[in-house]
Amino acid sequence: MVPSELQRRIAERYDQLSPKQRQVARFIADNEAFTAFASAAELGKAVDVDAATVVRLAQSLGFSGYAELQGVIRGRIPERLTFVQRIEQQRQQPMDRQQLPVQVFTNDIENLNQTLNQTQPEAIEAAVEAICRADHVIVVGMGFSAAVAVFLGHGLNSLGIRTTVLTEGGSTLTITLANLRPTDLMIGVSVWRYLRDTVAALAGAAERGVPTMALTDSSVSPPARIADHVLVAATRGVGHSLSPVGLIAVVNLLLAEIAVREPERALAVLREVDRLYREQGMVDGAEQNG
Amino acid sequence: MVPSELQRRIAERYDQLSPKQRQVARFIADNEAFTAFASAAELGKAVDVDAATVVRLAQSLGFSGYAELQGVIRGRIPERLTFVQRIEQQRQQPMDRQQLPVQVFTNDIENLNQTLNQTQPEAIEAAVEAICRADHVIVVGMGFSAAVAVFLGHGLNSLGIRTTVLTEGGSTLTITLANLRPTDLMIGVSVWRYLRDTVAALAGAAERGVPTMALTDSSVSPPARIADHVLVAATRGVGHSLSPVGLIAVVNLLLAEIAVREPERALAVLREVDRLYREQGMVDGAEQNG
Amino acid sequence: MVPSELQRRIAERYDQLSPKQRQVARFIADNEAFTAFASAAELGKAVDVDAATVVRLAQSLGFSGYAELQGVIRGRIPERLTFVQRIEQQRQQPMDRQQLPVQVFTNDIENLNQTLNQTQPEAIEAAVEAICRADHVIVVGMGFSAAVAVFLGHGLNSLGIRTTVLTEGGSTLTITLANLRPTDLMIGVSVWRYLRDTVAALAGAAERGVPTMALTDSSVSPPARIADHVLVAATRGVGHSLSPVGLIAVVNLLLAEIAVREPERALAVLREVDRLYREQGMVDGAEQNG
Amino acid sequence: MVPSELQRRIAERYDQLSPKQRQVARFIADNEAFTAFASAAELGKAVDVDAATVVRLAQSLGFSGYAELQGVIRGRIPERLTFVQRIEQQRQQPMDRQQLPVQVFTNDIENLNQTLNQTQPEAIEAAVEAICRADHVIVVGMGFSAAVAVFLGHGLNSLGIRTTVLTEGGSTLTITLANLRPTDLMIGVSVWRYLRDTVAALAGAAERGVPTMALTDSSVSPPARIADHVLVAATRGVGHSLSPVGLIAVVNLLLAEIAVREPERALAVLREVDRLYREQGMVDGAEQNG
Repeated sequence: MVPSELQRRIAERYDQLSPKQRQVARFIADNEAFTAFASAAELGKAVDVDAATVVRLAQSLGFSGYAELQGVIRGRIPERLTFVQRIEQQRQQPMDRQQLPVQVFTNDIENLNQTLNQTQPEAIEAAVEAICRADHVIVVGMGFSAAVAVFLGHGLNSLGIRTTVLTEGGSTLTITLANLRPTDLMIGVSVWRYLRDTVAALAGAAERGVPTMALTDSSVSPPARIADHVLVAATRGVGHSLSPVGLIAVVNLLLAEIAVREPERALAVLREVDRLYREQGMVDGAEQNG
Repeated sequence: MVPSELQRRIAERYDQLSPKQRQVARFIADNEAFTAFASAAELGKAVDVDAATVVRLAQSLGFSGYAELQGVIRGRIPERLTFVQRIEQQRQQPMDRQQLPVQVFTNDIENLNQTLNQTQPEAIEAAVEAICRADHVIVVGMGFSAAVAVFLGHGLNSLGIRTTVLTEGGSTLTITLANLRPTDLMIGVSVWRYLRDTVAALAGAAERGVPTMALTDSSVSPPARIADHVLVAATRGVGHSLSPVGLIAVVNLLLAEIAVREPERALAVLREVDRLYREQGMVDGAEQNG
Repeated sequence: MVPSELQRRIAERYDQLSPKQRQVARFIADNEAFTAFASAAELGKAVDVDAATVVRLAQSLGFSGYAELQGVIRGRIPERLTFVQRIEQQRQQPMDRQQLPVQVFTNDIENLNQTLNQTQPEAIEAAVEAICRADHVIVVGMGFSAAVAVFLGHGLNSLGIRTTVLTEGGSTLTITLANLRPTDLMIGVSVWRYLRDTVAALAGAAERGVPTMALTDSSVSPPARIADHVLVAATRGVGHSLSPVGLIAVVNLLLAEIAVREPERALAVLREVDRLYREQGMVDGAEQNG
Repeated sequence: MVPSELQRRIAERYDQLSPKQRQVARFIADNEAFTAFASAAELGKAVDVDAATVVRLAQSLGFSGYAELQGVIRGRIPERLTFVQRIEQQRQQPMDRQQLPVQVFTNDIENLNQTLNQTQPEAIEAAVEAICRADHVIVVGMGFSAAVAVFLGHGLNSLGIRTTVLTEGGSTLTITLANLRPTDLMIGVSVWRYLRDTVAALAGAAERGVPTMALTDSSVSPPARIADHVLVAATRGVGHSLSPVGLIAVVNLLLAEIAVREPERALAVLREVDRLYREQGMVDGAEQNG
């Protein structure tokens, strides 16, 4: 990838930075998704320095302050370009199609490595508990995130956890919000640029005292700021789009944990599904996956 | 992973095998999904030996013939167990929950590596051409595969390729089949155990002379046997379930290729989506991903 | 409409019939949908004669027995023709297009009159009670019946009764069945020819001890035979198709009854929907209908 | 029904009105849905008087002008009350539950009579032509109107007219708009209060030069003002809600007309559906309705 303007500035001035500023600079270079939405204080906390150090680093890099540095990240860095900007960029610097397969797969392996690094066992544990405790789970995810919501919904229902999936905004979502119960769990799958309706669904649930969970791309993204439980995955894409591979792997982990934790509930449903499929001749053998 | 009965036999008798038999044995050990549905001739072709060598290997491993060896693979190996059998197995040999995150992510990285190895640039190239040529794409994927179908459908529509996604069987699927046109392309996402309705949709399209594509887990799976274009991904899961990560990465590759090949079509749609989102205040910034 | 073979026979031999046989004959002529699936005993019960009288009537009309009479009804009468047969018939006796509007609307008025006549206040009362008592309602309706299921689902959710609508068969329906709870209510909307998956959903629910309700076209149709609660509507169509107008009016009645019975629950949800729509600018005024 | 404020004023001052003013007053009393959105000129045209007469009538009834009269209609008359206001009203004047069945069915018969009166054969003829000419039909209807959209979509697909149905707003609708082609037809089902997303879909299609059709409750409603083809139905409800029975009957008429006009196309699809259902054992007999 072409280094961003920000990465160039960091490289140029790195030697003049104090050790603490270097620490912040390295963190920012590696965690642009986080930096895009974190306050100076939150960023400082992540690397164990105070907010003033973060501000001074921004100034040392030639910005008027942290806000300007953050604006540059939000607006320009490749994985924050809009689909339109990315495709326009590609027309000028066309990718080598022969390299695409390797690029796409290594990029996704990198997404998995980064997501594993960001995965905190206690957060997963708490998320699994919240899911198992819920009487009814509602998963909301739209556009790019709809596939992740559908996969999570199918997996939970297959394990005996009753789940409704909503992949569109509008009147059904509104009526669902109006019918929420305190025994529900609302899970929003939402990545940059954070579609309004998904964020509003999480906010609406929180307002009504319903537990919430965000599956998102940064611990300080708008959905993450609302949700009780936050699970983060890397979503960098090759070319014009993002990749859901990291988010899907987080769902794989949740489903594996739930099956280990509550095997009886899962078995009751899966045996029943097996029996129904056999009766209806829906698969050759005993059971269906897809 | 606990070695399977088959892997044990291969290990025990490996020294007594001829060099050609060893080649077949290694291939089988690494490609159980393929072996589960390949004939002796197809398996032989894959390692450049004749069908008789495959049959002799099976006998050297103590089976009555290739059919018995294949039966063992279909019935017993871990990734071919039903969800029910897997969870029952887990209750007896519970997984270490602390190890789960690393296991899930390394398993998915392995899926990506294997999928990349199986990806043939010419097959991708031909698939991309078929997609770009279609007047209308219909993507069918159910149960476990529904999420992959939804992701592919959203990606294609975002690039200006008009796509309908069907994630359920029944009457809508039937009426869609009855309305197929020769200018359509039918894509089926179907992995073990290959839900009847998805395979029937591909067969119905093929019967009507409509081009077909399978996104599946083996080049000799039932959907692969029907489709004009076959794209294969590794779907091994940790615990009770399979993983769609390899399939999703193949979709990422298709979408990246299409965007490089037909940027103007993609831009026309994406600029329009940008404009509509801005007008309707659906995101903070210029464009939505999800 | 051209009188059916059966109606001709009844007219020809009417004078030779006994008073009780005439009663049965008139009932059959007016209630072919019922007769198509009722046993001789059930039919007898409907007109307060014994089964033997029904059988003798069939013989007096020149049939070998009741089964043959019923076979004629199932196979030949206009509203029991398949769509294909009806359109083929129309090609030979084309309808006067200028008459179509009046025919369609008067036919639907007739459907409403007939449906009102068949509507038993106690059945509605009991159905409303079952709906209000349920923790979660699942409505299944496919093909022609999907629209009725969608209308019922939207209406119930708008009144604060949490409802899931399934309009397709396949894996989602199967997993839903496997997750049923005794506090649920399963409602099937199913008319001639009674799609297998809807009937199976009602049967699956009944097997698990879950209360069931059928919205159907005859009190002895296959779904009616399974369900605890049966609501019947006339569905005769002009031309090739059936009409859902009677079924929709029954839903209108259910929704009006529920709103009168539990206004507080409805108000809590509707006020919330109002507020959300206003906040999100989804309608001009205070509230949305569609 | 309790007479509205407006109806009281008309009754009180009727004797003082000129013959032309009386004509306008009677029309307004009978057509409040129309008046709610018609300009003074449009209203005048409907009864063959000039706009000035309409304004003078409003003043004779004690309003400052036509705008104030119209405001009263939009805000107060029973069928224009929100669901919330209606249920609140009912709590104070509870309906007699024993009367409900008769009220609901006679109200729907009245909807059918009114709809038939408003149905213009030339408008139906032109609508049928537009549908038959389209390469692909997109039907949008949400909330209350979703069921009508689903019924229309199923009916058209069954007749061999390829149709996509959208029942939710948000990102799928947006991407569909961005992918519209001039050979498409966009049909919006939209009644009071005219959900923003449906009206926007019609406007978006019109902007792109795509033919449009509105299925709505008044010839001057917001969707009607945009669409090339306008079909109107009466939607008055008993109790808190509206009724879709009139809209459904209009769809019945459209489908009957199309089957008469293009029987060959319909037969090709219906025979195929029959064959598939038989092959898959989805119904007892030859064909499915629902």
